[in-house]
Amino acid sequence: MAHKPLQLTVLDDATIRALLTWPDVIDLIDAAFAADARGGVTVLPVVGHSLNGGRYSIKTSHLQLGEGEDALEVFGLKMGSYFPGNAARHLPTHSAAMLLGDPRTGQPSALLAANAITEYRTAAAGAVAARHLARADASVVALFGTGGQARAQLEALRQVRPVQEVRVWSRSHERAEHFAQTVRLPGVTLRAVRDGQAACDGADLVVTVTPAEVPIVLRDWIAPGTHVNAMGSDAPGKHELDPALLAAATVVVDRQAQSLAMGELQQPVALGLLNPNDIYAELGEVCAALRPGRQSDDQITVFDSTGVSFQDTALAGMVLRLVRGQQAVRTVLL
Amino acid sequence: MAHKPLQLTVLDDATIRALLTWPDVIDLIDAAFAADARGGVTVLPVVGHSLNGGRYSIKTSHLQLGEGEDALEVFGLKMGSYFPGNAARHLPTHSAAMLLGDPRTGQPSALLAANAITEYRTAAAGAVAARHLARADASVVALFGTGGQARAQLEALRQVRPVQEVRVWSRSHERAEHFAQTVRLPGVTLRAVRDGQAACDGADLVVTVTPAEVPIVLRDWIAPGTHVNAMGSDAPGKHELDPALLAAATVVVDRQAQSLAMGELQQPVALGLLNPNDIYAELGEVCAALRPGRQSDDQITVFDSTGVSFQDTALAGMVLRLVRGQQAVRTVLL
Repeated sequence: MAHKPLQLTVLDDATIRALLTWPDVIDLIDAAFAADARGGVTVLPVVGHSLNGGRYSIKTSHLQLGEGEDALEVFGLKMGSYFPGNAARHLPTHSAAMLLGDPRTGQPSALLAANAITEYRTAAAGAVAARHLARADASVVALFGTGGQARAQLEALRQVRPVQEVRVWSRSHERAEHFAQTVRLPGVTLRAVRDGQAACDGADLVVTVTPAEVPIVLRDWIAPGTHVNAMGSDAPGKHELDPALLAAATVVVDRQAQSLAMGELQQPVALGLLNPNDIYAELGEVCAALRPGRQSDDQITVFDSTGVSFQDTALAGMVLRLVRGQQAVRTVLL
Repeated sequence: MAHKPLQLTVLDDATIRALLTWPDVIDLIDAAFAADARGGVTVLPVVGHSLNGGRYSIKTSHLQLGEGEDALEVFGLKMGSYFPGNAARHLPTHSAAMLLGDPRTGQPSALLAANAITEYRTAAAGAVAARHLARADASVVALFGTGGQARAQLEALRQVRPVQEVRVWSRSHERAEHFAQTVRLPGVTLRAVRDGQAACDGADLVVTVTPAEVPIVLRDWIAPGTHVNAMGSDAPGKHELDPALLAAATVVVDRQAQSLAMGELQQPVALGLLNPNDIYAELGEVCAALRPGRQSDDQITVFDSTGVSFQDTALAGMVLRLVRGQQAVRTVLL
């Protein structure tokens, strides 16, 4: 009945944040999406449960990236939650942790904080989409939203496109002002705008990172040649874009089933403006070069991100590889 | 973007084992089954994935036991695995850990080793079944199987019935001899037997705890008044009992859907000997007194255990309550 204790690596957010660099994370997420399109990823059914005014979700996946000595194989889950009532208790409304298992032995291998991982993997997906879908010279960004993820989106985007100017819009202009005044990105000018249409006028890239449940970006605001990253919708009822914009654009999604169920496609499909067959591609197909990315300078492209489990497991696997063999790594015996 | 670190309680198997006492565990599991029948339990879909010759399963549940100050509410998951190839690497073939979340705030709250929890919750289910279904004077046990769980079954059974004699059968008589010689239970005589029928002759309780995929206990061996605990089957293809025995007995299961898919009911239903409607009850209905347990001294009763997630979460919740406020408890910050 006695078992040799299991040794799990334990990493908190600060440790993980210190290990991550945007270029590495973006390349990893690009490779993970490509692996998804090539069949190297299994995304298992999401387990969700609502209780006490909040909701838990458990997202599990198995990922194999590359072959031979450099191959990265990861199995793991993220237990995430959204408890809006936490705000009144001065607790974060989102919480998350990851539990990883050794894909060769089945033994639990690591417990990771998952706020930094979620932040980086989400922003990296936006950058990967921009890398394949935005014009190469895209430099003007309209940013809708001012949370932590909005900032991360800018940091990731400037790795892949020559971002020079950012117009910041928020439902609260005060928050937009605060964001524009406090976020410092070398070589980038930030400016708060009151009007969403003015933010989009002349923008090459539009990024939405809000919990909106009504469109905040309209079809007529978007000029030919623009790429739109819709990052906010990740639950039934949420959407940020005018359904007519999706109907007019080349639409790429992170995962078709999720996009239809909890992403930007909910509304246009319900309204009959878009058919699931009209989706141009999943992002992985573009990353794997199974379908071309942007094909002309006047195309409007939209990427709808809902967040897929393999982004978390890929990044967790990279983090664990980075700390492997380090003396200072914290472990617990179970 | 900064989050206050999460503080998770971390408990290893030895610590958990030292906290558990059979009477408390059996009463808790009895109450958890009763809560299940009364609607206080949500068992979420099991996520399973096969890889590299092994298999992971993630079992999640939410449990509410009692009300008011003594109420126990638990949300959590067990990541378990079975990697048969581990034996050649001198690693355990089964591994498991639990991740618990606070049901009020959504924050990950504890990481628990899950070998001791699995052992106790499984044995306790057998004892709960015996408490409600075996004759009150049952003292002679036929035990099929000699693993760690076989021993735990005896320890739990003697809490609820006046066990005096145990006949031990194994596919390997050597292992049966070893078990009978090394397991010491005060007031209980253990004896290895070569013949399963001889083990059952005069037995009041029959317990099967093997990975058998063909029947090891036949219909004709079981006398009126016997109670049978079939603990081993927990996967498609496994079964330990003669289908004719199930057809002749009053059958109680831990969870009907699981029993039909991976428990003892697979064979008799496939053979047309039993209809799912012939199942007398789920154990929780008997624990909740929604259906009577044993009703006569000549009834043959069978309990089929496949193992349900709420048994794990209930026990994890009890363990966490027992260590609450203890100074010496190990925690990690995430």
